[in-house]
Amino acid sequence: MKILCVNPNTTQAVTDIVLAEARRHVAHGSQVTGVTAGSGVAIVTTEAENVVAARAALDLVSAHHAGQDAIIMAISFDTAVAEARALTPIPVVGITEAALHTACLLGRKFGLVVMGAVSLPLYESLIGRSGLGQRLAAIEIAELGSVAGYLDAALRERLAREAAHRLARRPGVDVIVLCGAAVAGLAAKLRGALSLPCLDGVGPAIRQAELLVGLATAPAQNRAP
Amino acid sequence: MKILCVNPNTTQAVTDIVLAEARRHVAHGSQVTGVTAGSGVAIVTTEAENVVAARAALDLVSAHHAGQDAIIMAISFDTAVAEARALTPIPVVGITEAALHTACLLGRKFGLVVMGAVSLPLYESLIGRSGLGQRLAAIEIAELGSVAGYLDAALRERLAREAAHRLARRPGVDVIVLCGAAVAGLAAKLRGALSLPCLDGVGPAIRQAELLVGLATAPAQNRAP
Amino acid sequence: MKILCVNPNTTQAVTDIVLAEARRHVAHGSQVTGVTAGSGVAIVTTEAENVVAARAALDLVSAHHAGQDAIIMAISFDTAVAEARALTPIPVVGITEAALHTACLLGRKFGLVVMGAVSLPLYESLIGRSGLGQRLAAIEIAELGSVAGYLDAALRERLAREAAHRLARRPGVDVIVLCGAAVAGLAAKLRGALSLPCLDGVGPAIRQAELLVGLATAPAQNRAP
Amino acid sequence: MKILCVNPNTTQAVTDIVLAEARRHVAHGSQVTGVTAGSGVAIVTTEAENVVAARAALDLVSAHHAGQDAIIMAISFDTAVAEARALTPIPVVGITEAALHTACLLGRKFGLVVMGAVSLPLYESLIGRSGLGQRLAAIEIAELGSVAGYLDAALRERLAREAAHRLARRPGVDVIVLCGAAVAGLAAKLRGALSLPCLDGVGPAIRQAELLVGLATAPAQNRAP
Amino acid sequence: MKILCVNPNTTQAVTDIVLAEARRHVAHGSQVTGVTAGSGVAIVTTEAENVVAARAALDLVSAHHAGQDAIIMAISFDTAVAEARALTPIPVVGITEAALHTACLLGRKFGLVVMGAVSLPLYESLIGRSGLGQRLAAIEIAELGSVAGYLDAALRERLAREAAHRLARRPGVDVIVLCGAAVAGLAAKLRGALSLPCLDGVGPAIRQAELLVGLATAPAQNRAP
Amino acid sequence: MKILCVNPNTTQAVTDIVLAEARRHVAHGSQVTGVTAGSGVAIVTTEAENVVAARAALDLVSAHHAGQDAIIMAISFDTAVAEARALTPIPVVGITEAALHTACLLGRKFGLVVMGAVSLPLYESLIGRSGLGQRLAAIEIAELGSVAGYLDAALRERLAREAAHRLARRPGVDVIVLCGAAVAGLAAKLRGALSLPCLDGVGPAIRQAELLVGLATAPAQNRAP
Repeated sequence: MKILCVNPNTTQAVTDIVLAEARRHVAHGSQVTGVTAGSGVAIVTTEAENVVAARAALDLVSAHHAGQDAIIMAISFDTAVAEARALTPIPVVGITEAALHTACLLGRKFGLVVMGAVSLPLYESLIGRSGLGQRLAAIEIAELGSVAGYLDAALRERLAREAAHRLARRPGVDVIVLCGAAVAGLAAKLRGALSLPCLDGVGPAIRQAELLVGLATAPAQNRAP
Repeated sequence: MKILCVNPNTTQAVTDIVLAEARRHVAHGSQVTGVTAGSGVAIVTTEAENVVAARAALDLVSAHHAGQDAIIMAISFDTAVAEARALTPIPVVGITEAALHTACLLGRKFGLVVMGAVSLPLYESLIGRSGLGQRLAAIEIAELGSVAGYLDAALRERLAREAAHRLARRPGVDVIVLCGAAVAGLAAKLRGALSLPCLDGVGPAIRQAELLVGLATAPAQNRAP
Repeated sequence: MKILCVNPNTTQAVTDIVLAEARRHVAHGSQVTGVTAGSGVAIVTTEAENVVAARAALDLVSAHHAGQDAIIMAISFDTAVAEARALTPIPVVGITEAALHTACLLGRKFGLVVMGAVSLPLYESLIGRSGLGQRLAAIEIAELGSVAGYLDAALRERLAREAAHRLARRPGVDVIVLCGAAVAGLAAKLRGALSLPCLDGVGPAIRQAELLVGLATAPAQNRAP
Repeated sequence: MKILCVNPNTTQAVTDIVLAEARRHVAHGSQVTGVTAGSGVAIVTTEAENVVAARAALDLVSAHHAGQDAIIMAISFDTAVAEARALTPIPVVGITEAALHTACLLGRKFGLVVMGAVSLPLYESLIGRSGLGQRLAAIEIAELGSVAGYLDAALRERLAREAAHRLARRPGVDVIVLCGAAVAGLAAKLRGALSLPCLDGVGPAIRQAELLVGLATAPAQNRAP
Repeated sequence: MKILCVNPNTTQAVTDIVLAEARRHVAHGSQVTGVTAGSGVAIVTTEAENVVAARAALDLVSAHHAGQDAIIMAISFDTAVAEARALTPIPVVGITEAALHTACLLGRKFGLVVMGAVSLPLYESLIGRSGLGQRLAAIEIAELGSVAGYLDAALRERLAREAAHRLARRPGVDVIVLCGAAVAGLAAKLRGALSLPCLDGVGPAIRQAELLVGLATAPAQNRAP
Repeated sequence: MKILCVNPNTTQAVTDIVLAEARRHVAHGSQVTGVTAGSGVAIVTTEAENVVAARAALDLVSAHHAGQDAIIMAISFDTAVAEARALTPIPVVGITEAALHTACLLGRKFGLVVMGAVSLPLYESLIGRSGLGQRLAAIEIAELGSVAGYLDAALRERLAREAAHRLARRPGVDVIVLCGAAVAGLAAKLRGALSLPCLDGVGPAIRQAELLVGLATAPAQNRAP
């Protein structure tokens, strides 16, 4: 099976983090590759930037979906995922929607760790589109303060860990979801010290994409050749 | 990996249908087994009957979860799934919730084929608990008229097929979900003739259970030994 | 008129508290009796336990409804009340739904005193089924910490009183509802010191059951003989 | 016990119908009296007319509540009921809210028979204030066409009966509520021929008012002398 | 163009404040006049008082709409605006709805400054009727404590200013709306010191009324002569 | 005042229709100009195409907002309007949101005429973002079948007229809104023959933009120079 990770940001370092985690999850014998936007926004944090990334996401899907079995959209706002599904017969999975729907099979309500308050409107919009607002118990912010902070692995891990522990003490939270492409792999590190199940998006997205390919759910006329 | 299918109805024929389909989906080297309620309701169709099945479901989970890696609740009302999660550290997945969350990764809205109007309140309750009401586009009834009708494979397939084709013509439906333990395997048969992706519950439930085990999402202190 | 109080917990002491309060409210010449589950859970506090009680509730209703005019479900989660209505032509009234609908005729919004945070998901589910979420202003917890605490009358009264006074200071609360079978009779004790109307469930449930019998609302073919 | 029926329309004939039905329901030894607006609207059917009636309702409550134990607002839009509660320490009950909350104790969802499509916005607003939208299954119109039609007992009964039978065939309806002050007493006539429980507003309102007085729910400082 | 400001309170001082601000906004060559209720409530702060004002509002509209091009309802609860539209073919605009819909064209979510907690239920009802609940981010109270406080210009301005600054620090607020007829003109004073757009109701209401007249949206048979 | 109409489609003919109607509404002495996307989609009808237009919209706003007083987004899906507000201190108004908020000041509920069922998901998303779902009474489709149909003025007018008349007969519709940039000016033609107020988007958008500029609502530090 061939899975393509599309990063509609221009930061190759994030694509690399995502690919490393993707390869920890992908089934034996499968291949994961990545593409990064050639121009646009380094790291999307606002709605205006997200529009730029949406256009890049669709251009990348159009240009690179041939020969693939599934696509992971490697940006935590699930940018243009619904729109990309209209461009290709293969499954397209967003990393945050993958984590949220997986979390719904683990417990009643999930809580989110979000990397910076500036992106809250983007997550609010994502939750609204997903229809899962009723299953969201709480949000905690890991306030990185800047894109540079987001790209600092030690800072990112420390603040995400603290936010996850705050979330674990909030009433009604059954599952913790760490949001952000750059936090790929962090859930596995934190689980040992948390009292609740913990997910980030890349592992669930890779596995949900494989699941969809395995189910072969598409109608006959709509299958990837 | 060992997966247990729990049928809280007393009809072994349904357990057998579920197991046959489960074995088509389970990963190489894994084992699927089933247990059927020893007493209670032959086939649940109403809310009062579902209470009897809920008690049976919890008894079966308590008695049989040891040594398993995951449990599938093989009844389409996802009876007592949330409650069962409190009884065992291993994943418990309902067949309808599995299909619905999988469908959400395939398209904007799903439509349901339901085997008999008598069970609509049970599905309405299930959708309410899932929080996915906003993603439900339409419901079509395959009116079997009786439990005997439900257990008649030819009739079940013909009526489900007709309802799925009606659903495919309803505006806003992107994915078709066939509800019912006994329709396990029917989605694969119908896909070739439908213009939309089609799922029933057992395949998604088995694969989602494997996905959850693979992710090892539980906190360290809550892992199955 | 004959009214049966069904306690699907196994704790006779709670049945006794409920019966004592029921007899303070029942009309002159009527009879109130009680039945207690023979096996199951001593005091339900979680959703898994509530499934056990639901089965017990339906068994008790089936076994004892003959010859009665109405049934009170004497457990504050209104366990299996909707399902029990399918088993008998006589009215079945839950103690919490009775209090909530009565409260709606007294003011715009009610607040709840709940005996222990562990049961919040059960009340959230109850409110969801009732459709009255929009009329819920606030919840205060009387944290008893254990079933033993719940059965300690002095502790129960003190903590409930404190929670009721906190609730009376919350904005938007017009009526206070004390939730719990064992708090039967406590509302009458607290009213003198509170600035808002205060209800517990047993009085309203008995009186609503009599009201329903008095209205003779059932269609002719569905009347209790 | 003394109960006052307040009719904020100017049509004495409606007050008389309400009082006749009220006396069929009131407890032995209690007294029911009525007051009718001296000026305003003959029969409210629109929102602009309802504002006039609201003013009349509050004037009548202020002028006549002294010496009463409870008030019934005898107009099916529950006009100014919430506002009237601020003017008097005694219970004030609207005839439609009384029927709706009573219906909620009889089944999952109610359906409404409404006397004329012109008043639908008023009922939509009432349902919105009650918070019971989720429990409304369907509405059927008995199209009387005019106030004269509404005051024609034979026509009113025939059209309401037909609408109730249509409602009984609609999916999801468990209880039928006939809306309108002038239909007081009609539910009892229709029940024998219907397959579902049926209520109109005056009986439930009288009995709910007695229930509230009997519970003595008000705080000590707020009791009617 | 002729625009009439209807104040259904009896306080002429408020009408004068509204008219002064209205004349700052009205188009060149247009005329604005005001009418004040002759009897009723000095300043409405509760729902019972608002019913009295609603009756007065409709009486004033009926008596004074002839010869006008549009009506502004100069009370911040938009009292009887929907009902008044049934009485006249000319546009009727409430000052708060005008501010809210204008705010929706300036940003994602608005916050409200409300003059006294006693009126919160009236604003909650207004927001409910408007359907704009999802766009309300936060409410801050300027607690004037009494009608005398509300009529004290210096106190009103100081407390509203403080509340607006608190609102500007609340997450998610994009636009500030000052509620109250007597705060007319205050938004323009506060803007220079606030980091967010700020509106009160009278300017938007006058300009929206002119817009509606300019669009001539009414069907031919329904135009003011 | 200078107002810029931004058409993020590439079809100049639509820009020309919009400008002609805009000039009928703009205040004396103001100037309206237009820009059209240089590359992208001829006429957006799907969500994937709308992402392309969103990128074009933001590019056009960035390149052309200097020296303008307000911007109209001349595409009926209000594409990237919220995001564009982050790029410029001047008001940005979408043509459909302008019509919807204007309609809310004319009546309780609006109905939409939509040019082709293919775009329904885009309008559903727009309504969701606006928060006005509760005020939407009905949608009627004018099924043009293709982009060529949409650009055929005679066909467009005939089908929109028929859909508007169907909408006028739907219960609960108080105001008709014609959706689509190319229907600019059609509302004025249809009004004479309709029994309800009727709006298209361009007139309201121009007038709302002027209103916002006139109110000078922005904080001092955020004003266009």
